[in-house]
Amino acid sequence: MLQVDVCFSPALYPVYHHPEAIVVVVDIFRATTTMVTAFERGVRSIRPVATVEEAEAYKQVGWLVGAERNVKRCPFADFGNSPFDYTADKVAGKDIVFTTTNGTRAITIARAAFRVVIGAFINLQGVADYCRCHQRNVVVLCSGWQDKVNVEDTLFGGALADVLIRSGAYEAGSDAARIAREMWTHNQADLMAYLEPTDHLARLRANQLDDAVPYCLQQSMTDRVPELSIEEDNILVLRSK
Amino acid sequence: MLQVDVCFSPALYPVYHHPEAIVVVVDIFRATTTMVTAFERGVRSIRPVATVEEAEAYKQVGWLVGAERNVKRCPFADFGNSPFDYTADKVAGKDIVFTTTNGTRAITIARAAFRVVIGAFINLQGVADYCRCHQRNVVVLCSGWQDKVNVEDTLFGGALADVLIRSGAYEAGSDAARIAREMWTHNQADLMAYLEPTDHLARLRANQLDDAVPYCLQQSMTDRVPELSIEEDNILVLRSK
Repeated sequence: MLQVDVCFSPALYPVYHHPEAIVVVVDIFRATTTMVTAFERGVRSIRPVATVEEAEAYKQVGWLVGAERNVKRCPFADFGNSPFDYTADKVAGKDIVFTTTNGTRAITIARAAFRVVIGAFINLQGVADYCRCHQRNVVVLCSGWQDKVNVEDTLFGGALADVLIRSGAYEAGSDAARIAREMWTHNQADLMAYLEPTDHLARLRANQLDDAVPYCLQQSMTDRVPELSIEEDNILVLRSK
Repeated sequence: MLQVDVCFSPALYPVYHHPEAIVVVVDIFRATTTMVTAFERGVRSIRPVATVEEAEAYKQVGWLVGAERNVKRCPFADFGNSPFDYTADKVAGKDIVFTTTNGTRAITIARAAFRVVIGAFINLQGVADYCRCHQRNVVVLCSGWQDKVNVEDTLFGGALADVLIRSGAYEAGSDAARIAREMWTHNQADLMAYLEPTDHLARLRANQLDDAVPYCLQQSMTDRVPELSIEEDNILVLRSK
């Protein structure tokens, strides 16, 4: 039986790492939702970088750059971390660079896995199909907030675990997957009510950036599954068929 | 408003650490349940040590020693990690040394907090009263299993968070406390059913060591709250009034 597990924080990744597994990186509010959206809008590739300095260096040599820290767009950047910034007229056919507070760091941490893909509620079924096609163990890596556990990424881990386990091909890899799946099954009927008192929603509201929250909770509106490759000079690039 | 938080694994402790908080270390199956039981049976003090080597060195100079690794009693030890090992005729009035796979390590990690106390379902209300009397923020440190998240310790975190929040003096410190509290409120009516498929129960059963599980889930049968002090030569000692 294949196993699906949920790693609640990048700080826990070393104990959930399995070199032969598919790692699904998730940062629902908003980095991975935004990356999937950019591919849906026609972006050709995304280079996730861990630091603002790297992103700014790319900007200086002419790249389009999305950059966010502590929910806000960095002043030098073309885009912030809202999925609504990445419209087809701006990104279709383009290669862009992207850095966010938590999400892009999680991608870097997981790079040694068999495959690293980008998950969000908006491509939930696409990610589940990808995992089942590859017939591999799956680890959902929650980006969290500065290594703290958050509700929304854990919920996504529970949702993906639920789809995979109900398919009959997967079982829970550990208690973490059981906890996340139960959160999902208890709350999927009203995600907004469950998310109402959570940390990140408060942060987004305080900065008038919660307009994208309902969009981030829509399920399976695209089949795009961005996949990480490590290219020449050790550069990380996300592409999607 | 005071805050109660739940740290799901020792590996996450650096991001939940607060030097002015009370840290409640929990390892339901079975280290902290066993330590509380030993105090209830009249033990005078417990020295938690992180390694088997330290425990064995104490044994060689005549101490009573409880020592467990991977659920089994170490061959040299007087006691294993079952609460039933610590009977009044063996431990009343005695000072003992104790080491377990996960629980004693968690105590060592949290030592820099304002106070470190030992929590379990069997002293749940006593720990809640202790926290409220001190009027301090609270962090529940789940011992987990080799840094992985487990259900039973997280449930205890949710139970303590629930008691403290319902008292009106505390609020959830982060999403982790919200997740744990929801697990507790959904499952408190039938803990055994919820724990049935979990990792640690399977390990205990495989070693015929699940006899103490119902005992470990009893609530508030003692008011003993073992408290950590750091004594001469940096030695850690647990005592209870």
